Amino acid sequence: MLKSFASDNTAGVHPRILAAMASANEGHAKAYGMDPWTSEAADVFRGHFGDDIDLYFVFLGTAANVLGLKSVTRPWHSVVCADVAHINVDECGAPESVTGSKLQVIPSHDGRIRVMDIVPLMHSLGNFHHSQPRVISITQTTELGTVYSPAQIRALADFAHANGMLLHMDGARLCNAAAALDTGLAALTRDTGVDVLSFGGTKNGMMFGEAVIFFNRELASEFKFIRKQGMQLVSKMRFIAAQFIELLRDGLWLENARNANSMARLMAESLRGLPHVTITRPVEANAVFARLSPEHIAALQKDFYFYEWDPVLHEVRWMTSFDSTEEQVMEFVHAIKRLA
Amino acid sequence: MLKSFASDNTAGVHPRILAAMASANEGHAKAYGMDPWTSEAADVFRGHFGDDIDLYFVFLGTAANVLGLKSVTRPWHSVVCADVAHINVDECGAPESVTGSKLQVIPSHDGRIRVMDIVPLMHSLGNFHHSQPRVISITQTTELGTVYSPAQIRALADFAHANGMLLHMDGARLCNAAAALDTGLAALTRDTGVDVLSFGGTKNGMMFGEAVIFFNRELASEFKFIRKQGMQLVSKMRFIAAQFIELLRDGLWLENARNANSMARLMAESLRGLPHVTITRPVEANAVFARLSPEHIAALQKDFYFYEWDPVLHEVRWMTSFDSTEEQVMEFVHAIKRLA
Amino acid sequence: MLKSFASDNTAGVHPRILAAMASANEGHAKAYGMDPWTSEAADVFRGHFGDDIDLYFVFLGTAANVLGLKSVTRPWHSVVCADVAHINVDECGAPESVTGSKLQVIPSHDGRIRVMDIVPLMHSLGNFHHSQPRVISITQTTELGTVYSPAQIRALADFAHANGMLLHMDGARLCNAAAALDTGLAALTRDTGVDVLSFGGTKNGMMFGEAVIFFNRELASEFKFIRKQGMQLVSKMRFIAAQFIELLRDGLWLENARNANSMARLMAESLRGLPHVTITRPVEANAVFARLSPEHIAALQKDFYFYEWDPVLHEVRWMTSFDSTEEQVMEFVHAIKRLA
Amino acid sequence: MLKSFASDNTAGVHPRILAAMASANEGHAKAYGMDPWTSEAADVFRGHFGDDIDLYFVFLGTAANVLGLKSVTRPWHSVVCADVAHINVDECGAPESVTGSKLQVIPSHDGRIRVMDIVPLMHSLGNFHHSQPRVISITQTTELGTVYSPAQIRALADFAHANGMLLHMDGARLCNAAAALDTGLAALTRDTGVDVLSFGGTKNGMMFGEAVIFFNRELASEFKFIRKQGMQLVSKMRFIAAQFIELLRDGLWLENARNANSMARLMAESLRGLPHVTITRPVEANAVFARLSPEHIAALQKDFYFYEWDPVLHEVRWMTSFDSTEEQVMEFVHAIKRLA
Repeated sequence: MLKSFASDNTAGVHPRILAAMASANEGHAKAYGMDPWTSEAADVFRGHFGDDIDLYFVFLGTAANVLGLKSVTRPWHSVVCADVAHINVDECGAPESVTGSKLQVIPSHDGRIRVMDIVPLMHSLGNFHHSQPRVISITQTTELGTVYSPAQIRALADFAHANGMLLHMDGARLCNAAAALDTGLAALTRDTGVDVLSFGGTKNGMMFGEAVIFFNRELASEFKFIRKQGMQLVSKMRFIAAQFIELLRDGLWLENARNANSMARLMAESLRGLPHVTITRPVEANAVFARLSPEHIAALQKDFYFYEWDPVLHEVRWMTSFDSTEEQVMEFVHAIKRLA
Repeated sequence: MLKSFASDNTAGVHPRILAAMASANEGHAKAYGMDPWTSEAADVFRGHFGDDIDLYFVFLGTAANVLGLKSVTRPWHSVVCADVAHINVDECGAPESVTGSKLQVIPSHDGRIRVMDIVPLMHSLGNFHHSQPRVISITQTTELGTVYSPAQIRALADFAHANGMLLHMDGARLCNAAAALDTGLAALTRDTGVDVLSFGGTKNGMMFGEAVIFFNRELASEFKFIRKQGMQLVSKMRFIAAQFIELLRDGLWLENARNANSMARLMAESLRGLPHVTITRPVEANAVFARLSPEHIAALQKDFYFYEWDPVLHEVRWMTSFDSTEEQVMEFVHAIKRLA
Repeated sequence: MLKSFASDNTAGVHPRILAAMASANEGHAKAYGMDPWTSEAADVFRGHFGDDIDLYFVFLGTAANVLGLKSVTRPWHSVVCADVAHINVDECGAPESVTGSKLQVIPSHDGRIRVMDIVPLMHSLGNFHHSQPRVISITQTTELGTVYSPAQIRALADFAHANGMLLHMDGARLCNAAAALDTGLAALTRDTGVDVLSFGGTKNGMMFGEAVIFFNRELASEFKFIRKQGMQLVSKMRFIAAQFIELLRDGLWLENARNANSMARLMAESLRGLPHVTITRPVEANAVFARLSPEHIAALQKDFYFYEWDPVLHEVRWMTSFDSTEEQVMEFVHAIKRLA
Repeated sequence: MLKSFASDNTAGVHPRILAAMASANEGHAKAYGMDPWTSEAADVFRGHFGDDIDLYFVFLGTAANVLGLKSVTRPWHSVVCADVAHINVDECGAPESVTGSKLQVIPSHDGRIRVMDIVPLMHSLGNFHHSQPRVISITQTTELGTVYSPAQIRALADFAHANGMLLHMDGARLCNAAAALDTGLAALTRDTGVDVLSFGGTKNGMMFGEAVIFFNRELASEFKFIRKQGMQLVSKMRFIAAQFIELLRDGLWLENARNANSMARLMAESLRGLPHVTITRPVEANAVFARLSPEHIAALQKDFYFYEWDPVLHEVRWMTSFDSTEEQVMEFVHAIKRLA
């Protein structure tokens, strides 16, 4: 049995979600989203995000990000993002390759970017020698396990809109952010000016499936073509829809996210003060970043599965999941303590 | 309950496959294919296709086709295919958009293309004004429900290889072809010169998941990057792998395909001789093409779900599935008979 | 000295145009089109095409076509064109590669396409499985040396606009068409509903340089970025502008085109009735298509430079140029007569 | 008459080069580079760079860079370059859009990049989540007017080759570098490990035209298709070839570059010590970077044409050209002195 703190996608599927998939397996249904489950799922999403959204399911988070960005860019536009952004680091260049656009990368502060760092890029607007900044993309929770506050999101949205740009959010772990801030999902997205959202399911207990949500519906006018051409039109879509219904209908999303977050907090608190482990980032959601000696890392990796985030600094990342248990976390903590 | 002969993807998931997915939901597993199920699935595939293959799972058939083609083309190449090919008609331009290559479309004969139709394109080879034919892509079974014989495939493969080209097969319904011809899967692919294969699962009882198989392994050298950048790297891959294991391990693929094929044959045979229905194509696998009057089509569509294939000729397509039953087919046949 | 009827681009530069280039070589000038010559050239174009145009210079015809099409398409659109269209045959897949769009190729009639051949493509509109027809592209004069009449252009434009599409014209030889029909340049473009035009200079006596002209100016809103990113922003643009000024300001364009056309007519008329040469297409501008025996072709090619257009049918293409002389044509005619 | 120190492309054409173009205007010649001038030009290039090169002409520098990079990359590769690199800043995203590849941007030191800054990117090699570093691209002279020494180039080339990468040089101003270092052209390219070179003509007295030179000829195997599809196949190519012959045959390239460099040196030396002007970069070739007060910049720009390089720091860039004269430079210097 793999003991993993590598990522929230080493977890399996929440039993309730698996059961929902099984119960969607009733006879034939129209393909490509014209089935009753997909309609019901849309209603459930509208309950969270408001009625005036457009909503599309895709298979995975990279596609949600890239196709969401494609819907608001042309190849001479640029996407402003943090250096650590998933779209910059972990998508093998898919954003550039699929949209044709440049990523304008700016240094992040614990994973977040700020308006003041984006301002200098504005001098390119209108100059045909330069890619045109068109969209700011932020990740919630960030890749460093931190969380944008509603005010921080609003500031970026206002700046974007004032400059003819849009705000995109990679919400692969939006549920964890909402759990951390004790807000609803709309409070961090629609209500704070997000235009396009990747809403993640896979990292919060689903088998597969993400949603692209447009709060500015004009931007979605051709997304059905973008999704199909982007090789993300799910034929038996009811099996994504059924998962989302179960996740979002009565609070499973929050229960899952809260568990992951509290397990990270437990881990971090249990490790603080140890001389051979340094927690390197604020632990605001379900990630713990720490520095250990390379020997300690190697020793731990014999029994536990996780990544070295920064092989130069020997900084590791430990992610907790919807199904992480106190027992698992404390077993890991004790193993770390024994390293000393 | 939807009564559908629209496509084999309106069906759900075979119960054995669903059960296999559930049993793969055991604790944590490494993501991105580094799990035990994916290894086991690879072994099962090798049992069918031989040891010297490279194998990659993706979410859906369009991606299998497009990324398989991308692995063997550069944008100045062209892909030779039939006018009715799925890649030409039903992928919203994804092949051109993702690979950058031109499709060289040639008229088909009941869905199949022949060497003699490809010969005239060869004069472009080496001339930098023209796209360079690089790969012939065929669909097995074809979009018109016909089947390439091993000799027909071999002829295309030999011609391709003699001209510095490759042979790609869209095998979304390869299982149906093998069932129809009573051959193994390798007999229609590896043994007849196919270089790259899209092997379909979704249309034969799976929930999602297709495989790209390289018989010429050199062609696969960078496919891991192509798949990731192509937004098709499944994180919880064990849930595709578990489906394929169940499908391929002891003959479920064949059982499913045989049922679909025999239900189409039953339908066609039950309809032959009716004055108001003309079967328009050879019924070699699980598709029946027919012409009816527009009034009859409209009347039937009140109770049954299917597409008008050619709205000008009033030709319809009826697909049977792994789970189609004799009772369902005969209910449909009787409804058609009552139209007269 | 090469004796060429291969293409109108084997010719050099008209002496007046060369002189104009030399006289533009005065000291420094702002780059990228902010120079006085470019402004003056724009005025000259407006004199021909009307004041309400947007105008951009590029280096060559392929770029004019491809970038003009890029300005009106997204990758899920398709471009409807003739099978013989330059964009389909002679641009090495640049249209697909650069725009990402599919070409929807339809059989031509002596190079021209007709509304009735495009109608069947309209059933794809709105269906996300299919590329969306967005623009009809025609070539004037056609690749087979024929000419669209104003009424034929208008019919295509009306059909396009009625279906939410646009009309693009590859006018590499528009001057020859206007000369042939004895019309002005606007009569075949702005006045007949063309939305985007590639206006050719190189094949009518210039050294290099083409113009993309937007009659629907909204379509041009981002073309300055498309041109720059499309690697067609000329730095020392005055040297294209000076050529166009000379070509268009007082009728050199017409003089050149008329000469080319009349030399083709002379050639064709001088060859009619010969038993060993069959003129295969209407000779409406500056191209003559003919069939000869392969032996005769080979014999002629010893002294004259031209292409075999169709190596299967042994059909050749002979192009005349702005600088072709009666003497040269008759020398060629006599050589052909001597073959008998 | 424009008084410009904005760029070396506000200059016109060297009279000898213009004369060479005129004398190439003799009758018909085969198009697309099959003319005698292109052959002769290739010989002249081989005289400088060695016999074992492959050589292709294109219209402009952006295309030379982008297509040269396209020939050595696939979309999942990345191009490592300086933050100030022309390909990163001044090509409107063409590199990403045309190649599909990511630019990996690293901070420069006076325009140059160093091996130590590239080392950390190597941890991505082989990991399919990340773009794969494939080529290091440097600019000679750099965008900040500095020059890479042969040893610096060699160090980058060795590092690249040791890591399975290649070295690309944007040599838009390679002639200026060679003049500055008093070396031949091969000493900075072939002899120091450059694999692909953009050799610039336009900024050194030509009207248009650049060359892509492959020192590793295997990399060029499909470049003829890349150039055609990249919309850079010049039809009347003799007019680029004739320019290059004149530039390179007997030292005009060096004479031009030396003049530009010495005029920049004169300018810089004449300005040193002035209290209201700070030269901000080493003046190693034909660019002078300086800081002045915004009021002084505005005053100067009334009479002289140049760009503010950094609008935040009020740093300006002054470029000298092949045709800059001592008189012009001193007029400018005196105008600056009068500002005080």
